[in-house]
Amino acid sequence: MTVGSHIIADFYGVDSSILSTVDSMADIFEETVRYSGATKLASNYYQFEPFGASGVILLAESHMSFHTWPEHELVTLDIYTCGSPEMTEKAYEYLLNSLKPKKVDVHRLTRGLSVPEHVYSKPIIDSMEGSKIKGVLSL
Amino acid sequence: MTVGSHIIADFYGVDSSILSTVDSMADIFEETVRYSGATKLASNYYQFEPFGASGVILLAESHMSFHTWPEHELVTLDIYTCGSPEMTEKAYEYLLNSLKPKKVDVHRLTRGLSVPEHVYSKPIIDSMEGSKIKGVLSL
Repeated sequence: MTVGSHIIADFYGVDSSILSTVDSMADIFEETVRYSGATKLASNYYQFEPFGASGVILLAESHMSFHTWPEHELVTLDIYTCGSPEMTEKAYEYLLNSLKPKKVDVHRLTRGLSVPEHVYSKPIIDSMEGSKIKGVLSL
Repeated sequence: MTVGSHIIADFYGVDSSILSTVDSMADIFEETVRYSGATKLASNYYQFEPFGASGVILLAESHMSFHTWPEHELVTLDIYTCGSPEMTEKAYEYLLNSLKPKKVDVHRLTRGLSVPEHVYSKPIIDSMEGSKIKGVLSL
């Protein structure tokens, strides 16, 4: 089993007026969380001077973050959710549509890849009379 | 030029009593920030029931995060700092020494790899009479 999927994306050629102020980025990020169906626990945003912004949203399903370099038309993004990989992809799709990068470097990582199957499956299978069940997450 | 270095590490076989409560993990993370020399802007921590914890620290240099699964003796870590890669490695070293994992899956990514050299270097080189200067970060 695994515990989560992580999309690590650097967006180039993004409109620098969006990347310059934390307000525009925070709006997009809060909407990304809603669109993806994730559960926000807390968030922190920061405005750099003279321009540039950072933000991290702590989710029940892990976290999302952004860091912008408006002078390079660059924002580096992390979307990490445990449970369904569809949630991660949905958030990514929303960010692509909102930020409209001209170029993207993206990596998709599976987190907790080496969690042994037997840790959870044995007692669950016993109690379910041998039906196939995936491991249970702690959230 | 690039904008930052990102260590993505899943630690297995960590003492589950450390991973179960947010207090022990928050203490280690706050100390990791201090040891690495990073500048903390804000942090959010969360205690899951019956066990498990998450935390994100927003840094002037980007962010660090953890998400624990004590039932799997697993913590997934992200250390992302812009500027010096030594800061990222120092934080990673501190976490290795504090959490003592039996097994580690680690990826090292360079963020903002496709930022063109010419964006910043041209005017700086002009004013420095041709000496070699790396691009300037926005922080």
